[in-house]
Amino acid sequence: MQLQRFWCRAKNPDVRISLPVVCFVWQIAMIILFGVFVRYDEESDAHWSEHKREKNITSDIENEFYYRYPSFQDVHVMIFVGFGFLMTFLKRYSFGGVGFNFLIAAFGLQWALLMQGWFHALDPADGQIKIGIENIINADFCVAGCLIAYGALLGKVSPVQLMVLTLFGIPLFAVEEYIILHVLHVRDAGGSMVIHTFGAYYGLTISWILYRPKLDQSKRLNGSGYHSDVFAMIGTLFLWMFWPSFNSAISDHGDGQHRAAINTYLALASSVLTTFAISSLSAKRGKLDMVHIQNATLAGGVAMGTAAEFMITPYGSLIVGFCCGIISTFGYLVITPFMEKYMKIQDTCGVHNLHAMPGVLGAVVGAITAATASESVYGHEGLVNTFDFKGKYAERTPATQGGFQAAGLCVALAFGIVGGAIVGFILRLPVWGDPSDDNCFDDEVYWEVPEDEESIPPILEYNSHMVGKYADRM
Amino acid sequence: MQLQRFWCRAKNPDVRISLPVVCFVWQIAMIILFGVFVRYDEESDAHWSEHKREKNITSDIENEFYYRYPSFQDVHVMIFVGFGFLMTFLKRYSFGGVGFNFLIAAFGLQWALLMQGWFHALDPADGQIKIGIENIINADFCVAGCLIAYGALLGKVSPVQLMVLTLFGIPLFAVEEYIILHVLHVRDAGGSMVIHTFGAYYGLTISWILYRPKLDQSKRLNGSGYHSDVFAMIGTLFLWMFWPSFNSAISDHGDGQHRAAINTYLALASSVLTTFAISSLSAKRGKLDMVHIQNATLAGGVAMGTAAEFMITPYGSLIVGFCCGIISTFGYLVITPFMEKYMKIQDTCGVHNLHAMPGVLGAVVGAITAATASESVYGHEGLVNTFDFKGKYAERTPATQGGFQAAGLCVALAFGIVGGAIVGFILRLPVWGDPSDDNCFDDEVYWEVPEDEESIPPILEYNSHMVGKYADRM
Amino acid sequence: MQLQRFWCRAKNPDVRISLPVVCFVWQIAMIILFGVFVRYDEESDAHWSEHKREKNITSDIENEFYYRYPSFQDVHVMIFVGFGFLMTFLKRYSFGGVGFNFLIAAFGLQWALLMQGWFHALDPADGQIKIGIENIINADFCVAGCLIAYGALLGKVSPVQLMVLTLFGIPLFAVEEYIILHVLHVRDAGGSMVIHTFGAYYGLTISWILYRPKLDQSKRLNGSGYHSDVFAMIGTLFLWMFWPSFNSAISDHGDGQHRAAINTYLALASSVLTTFAISSLSAKRGKLDMVHIQNATLAGGVAMGTAAEFMITPYGSLIVGFCCGIISTFGYLVITPFMEKYMKIQDTCGVHNLHAMPGVLGAVVGAITAATASESVYGHEGLVNTFDFKGKYAERTPATQGGFQAAGLCVALAFGIVGGAIVGFILRLPVWGDPSDDNCFDDEVYWEVPEDEESIPPILEYNSHMVGKYADRM
Repeated sequence: MQLQRFWCRAKNPDVRISLPVVCFVWQIAMIILFGVFVRYDEESDAHWSEHKREKNITSDIENEFYYRYPSFQDVHVMIFVGFGFLMTFLKRYSFGGVGFNFLIAAFGLQWALLMQGWFHALDPADGQIKIGIENIINADFCVAGCLIAYGALLGKVSPVQLMVLTLFGIPLFAVEEYIILHVLHVRDAGGSMVIHTFGAYYGLTISWILYRPKLDQSKRLNGSGYHSDVFAMIGTLFLWMFWPSFNSAISDHGDGQHRAAINTYLALASSVLTTFAISSLSAKRGKLDMVHIQNATLAGGVAMGTAAEFMITPYGSLIVGFCCGIISTFGYLVITPFMEKYMKIQDTCGVHNLHAMPGVLGAVVGAITAATASESVYGHEGLVNTFDFKGKYAERTPATQGGFQAAGLCVALAFGIVGGAIVGFILRLPVWGDPSDDNCFDDEVYWEVPEDEESIPPILEYNSHMVGKYADRM
Repeated sequence: MQLQRFWCRAKNPDVRISLPVVCFVWQIAMIILFGVFVRYDEESDAHWSEHKREKNITSDIENEFYYRYPSFQDVHVMIFVGFGFLMTFLKRYSFGGVGFNFLIAAFGLQWALLMQGWFHALDPADGQIKIGIENIINADFCVAGCLIAYGALLGKVSPVQLMVLTLFGIPLFAVEEYIILHVLHVRDAGGSMVIHTFGAYYGLTISWILYRPKLDQSKRLNGSGYHSDVFAMIGTLFLWMFWPSFNSAISDHGDGQHRAAINTYLALASSVLTTFAISSLSAKRGKLDMVHIQNATLAGGVAMGTAAEFMITPYGSLIVGFCCGIISTFGYLVITPFMEKYMKIQDTCGVHNLHAMPGVLGAVVGAITAATASESVYGHEGLVNTFDFKGKYAERTPATQGGFQAAGLCVALAFGIVGGAIVGFILRLPVWGDPSDDNCFDDEVYWEVPEDEESIPPILEYNSHMVGKYADRM
Repeated sequence: MQLQRFWCRAKNPDVRISLPVVCFVWQIAMIILFGVFVRYDEESDAHWSEHKREKNITSDIENEFYYRYPSFQDVHVMIFVGFGFLMTFLKRYSFGGVGFNFLIAAFGLQWALLMQGWFHALDPADGQIKIGIENIINADFCVAGCLIAYGALLGKVSPVQLMVLTLFGIPLFAVEEYIILHVLHVRDAGGSMVIHTFGAYYGLTISWILYRPKLDQSKRLNGSGYHSDVFAMIGTLFLWMFWPSFNSAISDHGDGQHRAAINTYLALASSVLTTFAISSLSAKRGKLDMVHIQNATLAGGVAMGTAAEFMITPYGSLIVGFCCGIISTFGYLVITPFMEKYMKIQDTCGVHNLHAMPGVLGAVVGAITAATASESVYGHEGLVNTFDFKGKYAERTPATQGGFQAAGLCVALAFGIVGGAIVGFILRLPVWGDPSDDNCFDDEVYWEVPEDEESIPPILEYNSHMVGKYADRM
């Protein structure tokens, strides 16, 4: 009885205490942990000139910074403007879309530097994490997983819940990534498995546990507006344009980065055409739906996350994009409504269509491409470099690698679903300030929203109106 | 009689069959053609490490990718966000502006890789096109020509017509480019002739053939809105900022790229001031017109397309920008209305002012700058490198080069006008689903347009309103 | 009496003569001065291939262009899209925010190339300024100072006043920069002092002198709208994302750029959390205020302007960002209203909170970090490189350097305040076409503003409405 009252008490979306406490305490924790653990690596440390001499590096241009910084900045734009603006599509949740995305990404990237650092960048000599450009790219990647999960929950959760989602999501990601990339020695440069599959199922499982049977009460706000749709296109296009940088950001120097960029570029182009085709085919008089254009056009990038650095060939990339545009648009048309009606999964942004399905497909494509790799196509050195068949993996064959790639997908799925289930239950605690069912998708709940610009009286009528409507604002 | 009925039948903008068919069939054709013809070049192929050894390349940083990828990404942003958002300025055609731009660019770049590949990148050893970073930059360039043409037609054509425009525009571009750059051995790194002059006259000629005498019926929508003007500024600024990358993207390594970027940067800055000056001078009380600011400020970049890599000097660049800002703004004030009234050319975005006139001027500037080039200014090596006076062109003098540059302009004009005339007649076939005269500039025709966000009742009034206005949406 | 009438005559915001004259005359002056003084430097000149041979440079990739161009483009985006869109937040001054920003930046960068050139890049051999990529980055930096000043004056001045502000602001900046960087040999790669402190106090002092006691008459427009707030987030995010490029754009090759980028990235992330915390803490029900999120989240970047290239350590960067987010948000809550009420400083964008306070703090942090630098942390070579203890500064110790850093701050403050006072009095002359008190923050004054898109009648009602409301537009 007591317990029931605890679980079912009325929603109170006041976060005046909880949000500041969470932000302050966690940021202070970050500072302390960084103080204990994090230092510059040899390429960002002032000892670089000595290091350069020791390693016979002839020029500053060989500093990793110059190989990766342009890609990093593109990825950074994807995380903050890409994901952020993609989530502004709701007519009255643009502040929450871009604003909370900003908040959790800024927290997540610090936390990711630590978590990934402990797993991947620990210097055995002094037990410290040494960071450089590659670490901050990876931190942005790690954050992407949580932002994908946010997409499924958009408009239905409080910023405090999102911070909790990120707090748990980052370590889950780091462990999952460690198992996939290091224990299984799987290749996944653009993260079809590690980022997209994990992130999507993490968010979908949480959404399933937080199911709101009466969400219809907010239905008037659960849709786009004309201008909010154009804002969302900013997000779409920056994601679309920079996805080649995303998939090539941490792949091998030289041909690896080069090929990953080209493959992704082609897959994305192909997705656009099939998305337009299915979207037009599905509606009366062939009218296109902005939701499809904003999302399904990106599916090719997701699906090339694993195979982009492989010799998948240009036409192979086009085929992947072709299929993904179809599957993803079909998902928006059929699967999302089905999941909402029959599976109790409310997926605001349709991450199942944009990240889950293309991510799984990308993993499968990657496994097949890896399994069929051969020295005749890659050259001996090329094969070794691309799949990193070195050290204790020197004997691994492409076929075996294909098997491990498939195993990696299972790990990503397991982490997403089990992790999401646990975090979902934590987020159901009635202490996080989430909105009531008739208050979802509404910026009014967590933001000071300005009165509409439409209500400005023209200057000519200004004086006569003053006494009435606007007097209180003067 | 029968024929007349065929040509004059009522417009039916239903593209439910035609658009999906075009997208599917052409995308499948791309996949097949890529399968037969397109492979990675030696810098993006997994054999790169062997290639590196053969050619004594000491470092991965010498891979063409690192010379050109940042410029490529800037160009990519110009194509999709720059052109796309520049075309969102109409109050109710923002979806069509940015959305169809996205569609035809995504198709065009694939088609361009093939067409340009056959002309420029065919490996004689195996008859295949080998692609790398430079090819994808060139594909984006090629697409730009078609997007410029779209600007003249904005709001008056169907997406199927745009696809047809692109289908023919790309090969026309590729042949024109082959003649100008290879047969005539003309320099045009930023495409004043090849891209802007061709694209603008291609679009203008089509617009002339598709002349709509009763377009006034859509006049209420043929104008901007407050927010759509701000959206368009996103396009303007990304074009303006990244134009230095556009003009330097494929110019020579080292000083060539460096100088092209600086010259373009200066010309653009100069255009801004004269645009503001003329815009203010032309209106009552000196009020500025957003159309001018959105477009004419870019004219300096167009006009530096040919001469940017030459030793035009910093003040020469400023002079070019100065003139173009004036000419282009003057075009919006006088020439566009004149052309519409007396020449039956309806040019929605004013591409004549932004691309045609500055493009022609740029070609002339380029010819003069080339003709007056000398070893005292360039140095012997510099002259040879800049104008590529090598091989069978070793004996060409700057004066001769100037003549060839002028010839190049004629080729671009001829291809634009003749090509546009042919494609224009094809597009007049009454099978492409174009909108009727009173339906132009309206997203409702091809898009599911959301109800305005302004119609959301405030939450307090929500219950009382439910029965009436919003009951059907619940 | 006569004089009083001169000073107090009614405002007439007609700029039809003054704005074109200013633009034309100054642009022509630029062309003449560039003609006399400005040439390409050895890395952008066609003689590069000879220069390369002389200096034994083995590869084109060593051209400064490849070290700095990606950072330049990021800075360029910050100047035009970042600052421009950040200033679109007012509900009816978006055109003026982004448009005038565009105008004065385009003028300022030319003027800055000259002024900075005379102080820093004069070739003693021929008395000419030799420009390359680093000069154009510095010109963008110089412009930033004037744009910050614009922030304090947003909506209250005419474009002609802004041009005058820039005309004087650039030389003030260049002299101040020369004294700080060259005479005092102070390090300030990201410009906490040189750019932010100077720019902010320059603008605030002008705003103080232009104080409008009756500004309340425009209060109805001095606020944001829902969509204008989302537009402003575009500015915020591009500033936030690219600030690491800003602070690293002209720092040392290799570890210098690498470390500056990482430190700035971390400080910015930390600012976001404390900004959200204070914003939420300060409002009823914890509602966040977009003004804080748009601005205070950037404070960490400002405050890392001096110390970013030092070995401040990752946790040091987090601490700086932590404090700045708090101080800056607190400024918006308390100090801006206080300054407006008691100090007669009307600061539209709150540049005191975003640039002045974090800038001063950044200078102090830089001085302390410099004073405590040691060979054990930097290594001998690292210390010499980072602080440029070479030539006549070879004997300077870190402690002395710390003192000079502090002196640099005083110079920046003095130039900002004294320069602002002088320019403020010039701008009070009643000849510049500034708006009257009830016309501030209104695009109608200087722009042709389109009628609202909301007034479009739906197509179905079109005919019946024609006679009335829309007949005049047909």
